[in-house]
Formats: sequence, C-alpha cells, structure tokens
Amino acid sequence: MPEFLSLVSPDEALKLLFSVIDPKVTPEDTQAEKALGRVTAEDILSPQDLPDFKRSTVDGYAVRAKDTHGANEALPAYLILRDEIPMGEQPGFIIKDQECALIHTGGMLPEGTDAVVMLEDSQILESGEIEMFKAAAAGENIIEIGEDVSAGEVVIPAGTRLRPSEIGGLMALGITSIKTARAPVFGILSSGDEIVHPSKKTKPGQVRDINSYTLGALIEDLGGEVVHYGIIPDNRDEMLRALQKAQQECDHLIVTAGSSASTRDLTAEIMNSLGDPGVLVHGILIKPGKPTIFAVSGETVMIGLPGNPVSALVIATLLVTPVIESCLGIKKLRPKAALLAELTVNISSQTGREDWVPVRIIEKPGGSLLAEPVFGRSNLIFILAKSDGLIRIPASATGLEAGTLVTVRLI
Amino acid sequence: MPEFLSLVSPDEALKLLFSVIDPKVTPEDTQAEKALGRVTAEDILSPQDLPDFKRSTVDGYAVRAKDTHGANEALPAYLILRDEIPMGEQPGFIIKDQECALIHTGGMLPEGTDAVVMLEDSQILESGEIEMFKAAAAGENIIEIGEDVSAGEVVIPAGTRLRPSEIGGLMALGITSIKTARAPVFGILSSGDEIVHPSKKTKPGQVRDINSYTLGALIEDLGGEVVHYGIIPDNRDEMLRALQKAQQECDHLIVTAGSSASTRDLTAEIMNSLGDPGVLVHGILIKPGKPTIFAVSGETVMIGLPGNPVSALVIATLLVTPVIESCLGIKKLRPKAALLAELTVNISSQTGREDWVPVRIIEKPGGSLLAEPVFGRSNLIFILAKSDGLIRIPASATGLEAGTLVTVRLI
Repeated sequence: MPEFLSLVSPDEALKLLFSVIDPKVTPEDTQAEKALGRVTAEDILSPQDLPDFKRSTVDGYAVRAKDTHGANEALPAYLILRDEIPMGEQPGFIIKDQECALIHTGGMLPEGTDAVVMLEDSQILESGEIEMFKAAAAGENIIEIGEDVSAGEVVIPAGTRLRPSEIGGLMALGITSIKTARAPVFGILSSGDEIVHPSKKTKPGQVRDINSYTLGALIEDLGGEVVHYGIIPDNRDEMLRALQKAQQECDHLIVTAGSSASTRDLTAEIMNSLGDPGVLVHGILIKPGKPTIFAVSGETVMIGLPGNPVSALVIATLLVTPVIESCLGIKKLRPKAALLAELTVNISSQTGREDWVPVRIIEKPGGSLLAEPVFGRSNLIFILAKSDGLIRIPASATGLEAGTLVTVRLI
Repeated sequence: MPEFLSLVSPDEALKLLFSVIDPKVTPEDTQAEKALGRVTAEDILSPQDLPDFKRSTVDGYAVRAKDTHGANEALPAYLILRDEIPMGEQPGFIIKDQECALIHTGGMLPEGTDAVVMLEDSQILESGEIEMFKAAAAGENIIEIGEDVSAGEVVIPAGTRLRPSEIGGLMALGITSIKTARAPVFGILSSGDEIVHPSKKTKPGQVRDINSYTLGALIEDLGGEVVHYGIIPDNRDEMLRALQKAQQECDHLIVTAGSSASTRDLTAEIMNSLGDPGVLVHGILIKPGKPTIFAVSGETVMIGLPGNPVSALVIATLLVTPVIESCLGIKKLRPKAALLAELTVNISSQTGREDWVPVRIIEKPGGSLLAEPVFGRSNLIFILAKSDGLIRIPASATGLEAGTLVTVRLI
C-alpha cells in the first residue's frame, strides 16, 4: 500500500475495484415459486411453445375465416353450430365448411378453424344456426401457437433479478425449479471502543451499534447474506484476528471503522496486510463518506466504511450496492427508482467533491413534487429516517439553486 | 347486488371500497433488527435524548470557547493540555480556564468545555502547551445533547414502513422490540377448468396456473401473507364452498376468475351471496383489467381479478397494492418509484378508459431515457417479463404522441 493514496471520485473507486475483481456466481437450485428477488444463474430456455395450442381470446364462435367473408349487418353469414368446446379439453371434432363451434375465452380452437367471431357480433337463431354480422380475418381473436414464446427461446437471461412477472412466466412453462445465484455472504464488523450492543444500557461516552444493523438490512434486502461479528475493540491484534476469522468464513467483509483518523488508518493497514492486491482506494471525493476504503485480498472484497452511521449508510447505498449486484451476476440493471422534484432552497457545495444531500419529498397540490433538504449534521441517524431520498450535487458544481429540477434517488 | 353495475374509474373503485372498509391493524411484537419492510403499529417515542452526552464531531481539543477568543495564525491562543479523553468513557476530570483535552471524533466532552478546535488548527509545543490558530465558537464541532432527537419525541410515527435508516434509529435508541402490523392473510383462489398446477404436464387445451404465483409473490413482497387454495373447478357449488372455507381462514380473498364472461358473473354472484354489503364494483374503466370485481362481506375484502395473467398482475399492482397498504395501516405513502422517459411511438387509446401500457426503458447515450411500448396481446405473460414498467394514458386522452415525456411506474 502506498503511504498516501490520492482521493478518487466514486466512479473511479468502483472502476478500480472492478478492475481487480470478477466475482464468480455459484448457482444453486431454487424453487421458482419462492424465487422472487433472486437472480438467475443461467439462461432459462423455454421447453415448449407457449401457448402450445391455438387459444381464443374472446367468448364467441370458432370459424373458418373464409366462411364469414363479406359478412355484415345487412348481409350476415349463416353457419351451422356444431358443438360447444369444453374448457381445458381438446375438441373431439373437426369443423368443416359452413360449420362453427361455441368457444370460451382461453378455449382451444378445433381443427379446421382459424378465427373466432365474438358473441356480440353474432346471434343464435331458432333453427340453431348462427348468424354472423361481421367477417373475421384469419387469426382474428386467437393467440397462435408460440405467440408468447417459442420452444428453445431464451425467455429469461442469466443475471436477471426475478419479479412477479418472471415467476409467472416460469410457471406458465412448467419450470418449477431453477438455478439462481447463491447469496454472497458478507461479514460485518463494527469497530470502536465507544460502541456497545443495542440491547445495552449506555454509560456516559458510549453509543449503541447502528451500522451493523443498517448495513445488514441493506445487504439482505439486496440479496446478500450477513454474518455479524459484533463490535471489535480498536486495537491492532484484535482487529486483525477478527478480520482473518471473518475472511475465512465469508465471501466479503464490511468494516465500519472507528470514527477517529488513527483508527481508520489502522483499519486500512490491517486490510492491506491480509493479502494482495490490498488497499485500492483510501478516501473518496464524496460527502458524506470521504474516509471510505476499498481493499481486496484474493477474491475477498473488503470495504471500510466511516463510523458515522449516515455516511456508512449513504456509501453502502451508493457503492456497496453495485458490489452485491456484481456478486449476484446481475447483467442488466433495471433503471433505479428515482423521482424528479424541484429543489426548494439553494444548496452550496464544494467543487471537486460529489455531494449527496438527504431530502424529503413534498407533493404540491397540482401533483408536482418538491425536494426539501433535511439539514442537520451528517452524523444524526434520524436525518436519514426523516428523508425520502438523496440528491446528488456533481463534483463540477458549486451548488444547486432553488427551483432546479433534481433527480431524487429514493432510499 | 344490482343486476347491472355501471363501470367506474379505478379511483372511484378504490373510493367505493374504502367507503365501506376500514381494516383494523393487529399489532404484534417484532424484533427491531428483523423489521425491515414491516409497518409500525404504534408511534415510537424516544426513551432518551440522542445523543445523551455532548460529542465531538472531529479529532481535536475540547476547549472553553472563550479561551480561544480572537485566536488566529498571527496571534494564537495557548492552552494547557490536561489529558486525553478515552473513547467510550466519561472524562474523569473537569477542564478549567486555559486548559484543554485531546478528544477523538465521537468522544465525550469533559465538563467545562463547550467547543472543539480541530487538530489541523492547532499544534503541540515542546512545552506540552497547545497552540490554537483559530477561535472556536461555543458549540463548534460538537453535537449537543438531544440534537438528533429528544426524550419523548415521536421518532417513527405509526404506519411507517421501516427502511434501513429507521432500523438504525431504533438501534441507536436501544429499542430492540417494537409493535408492527400483523401481515394480513390473503387467500388466493384460481378458477378455470382449463387450469392445471404448474408442475403438471399439460394436455391439449390446458394451461398452467400463473396467477396464484404472480399474485402470491406480489402480495408477499408488499407485506401480506398468502394461503393458496389452488384451482377451483368452474361450478357454483365447488366455488361457493371454496370461498366460504377461505373466508373463514383468511382476512381477505383474491379470486382469479375463469376467463369467460359467464364464469366471471358466477364469481360475482357467489361473492355477493357471502354477506353484506356484497359486490361494490363489477367492471372498471381500465385496460387491461376491465372485468375486475370488488366485493366486501363483513370485514373481508374480496377481489375478483381477470383470469388473463397480464390483466390480473397489472390490476393487482395498481389496485390490490393500496388495499394491502391499508391493511398494514400505512399512513403516509412514500412516493412510488417512477421514472420520466420519452415515449418512442404514438399510442392510441379509447377515451373514457384509463390505459396502462407496458414499456421497456432504453437509456440514450446522453443518459436520458426512452420508453418503448412492448406491444403484444395483453394475455401474454412474457410481455410483462420483457417490460420495465407501465405508463398510464388518462381516461380523458385519445392516446399519447411520440416524444411525450411519460412517467413510468416500475414493476
């Protein structure tokens, strides 16, 4: 590790990290029914055409389209009603010229037919014949075989996070078990002699552990698994031992450093001693969260976050999220949830540093949105609890003016 | 039930429903650490001031501000270094006039001090005195007692869905157990003689159950609990028995009706027979999803969704979501995830009916977004799997022109 690493932008920090790691996805069998939010570990191919029979999209009469040719209100076509098609069954008959069959939405078209005339465009006569007031084109009101997907088609690519619609697609194809990415295991270590477990009564000078739980919740929500190593005393031997143990037991490590500069340097030094390539980033041009550390030892990513709980959570949201997504093999990121809103006040910032400011969203009577900064020192956890999202002031700006339309990243 | 109910808009449908129901929230004890996504069932009050001692926000020297008055580079102030303040402990001394103490970020200020001078604004002399190059105002670089929250303050109101930041706030206050809303239990019934379980091989004319799983995944994701009643044959007796059983065992019911008009009417008739006030809405001015039914029997909400899996999932996303949120007692809805994008093509629609069109988001080189409609018949489940979100064409419009900036609701 160089004695002094120059500060880098958030994007450069991620680029440096991804230039040395390429997390491998371990596939595991998963019940499709329970796979919401999981990420596919291989391309999923359709084993069949869907639908695999011609289906009606309406209630009506299955016909040979040519038999209705030219039919209209003034000059209806007359067809013989052959039978009713029961739902869920293959019709036991073939429709010949001038014949039709009653069919329900979703029913299977009988052999010989190629269109459906809607009930409302027809009338049953006392003779039993059906009067058709409208011509049907071939293919009208039916779903063709393979119209949704064809056999052999990639229906869900590897690296897709599954939503209800994809679960539905799997079920439609009878795919009840799939390979998804095993959750990457993140060890979380909190350091700081002033930190105590949340269940403890604090003595003067002590504060409770926040970071283990905010980061744990975020990581689990994104699809990671968390192992808590609790609170590590601020000394070299204990911290080294704890990191070595955690490195053996987990895929990756998150360490929230103690708050003082010396403790943060100690964290970086220990991470660097754990193996090559060591510390890649020590300090990022971002506020909050400047004293962030990215290190890699073999295949283990180690991220040192500031002890300040707001900085830790903001940095985790912005920079740990892509690491987890990469571990899960996510190929195509869906657009992140965001909102456009009008900034209520001027905010100043320092050029050369990206600023992220917590805001509350206020809906104006017309429905348009205002973004009101939630000011306060960056180490007050309830500042974030009072916010709906974060807005970004680019490194090139000296601030944002009231009235600017800003993109709010929801948290 | 009136023989014929006129179609209502989606908003009117929800208004009608909420005019007769007011779901009661059942509080249950929940471990705060595991409460991500749960909804608070009571106001959470802070049991203490946070912080409950004066903390330094920097590494530096705790001082009496008045002792640094007027100090600058040319005319520094000189203070006697009394001691170092250990992290996590109450300083065992009082700072008197012209004294200071070394303090780390997060450390507790000793009695007598009211500000901190940063390390970089000071220098330690050979004499052991500290030279201060900058005056500190009272309160500078410290967090006051109660600056984050005060004892007795409502820190998280009832009806809040918990995010990582709120979990962190609870931990900071030592609140490890809270009351959250018990998950409302939704019974899901699929009807249709053509429907078979996803694990089954289909015979010609049969299709697999999709709706039970898309709706189940959506409801669980929103914080509901799901009981599956499987596939109910399309006949009065069996459907009535199934709904009665499900009503006894669940809070609310979701029935995906068979696809044909007669089956849907049967569903409405049975729902209506289960108790007052009965069917409130039978048909909504929306596409997809027109044949949606809202019924209430006592305190049970019964929603009949179209058998078409795309319609069922779109309607559940738009109209079942607010029902679940109401059951959970959610008071203040956070802004829904959305994106602004430019529509790529003209879309036409029928006035008087709200249309929701699935779209794929494409990022342009400059970073701005395009919304490209994913066309196809509304009953193809993979249409939704290929989409990122939905756009709304208001009932008053006859369509949207290419180039219009549209709000995309992510799915």
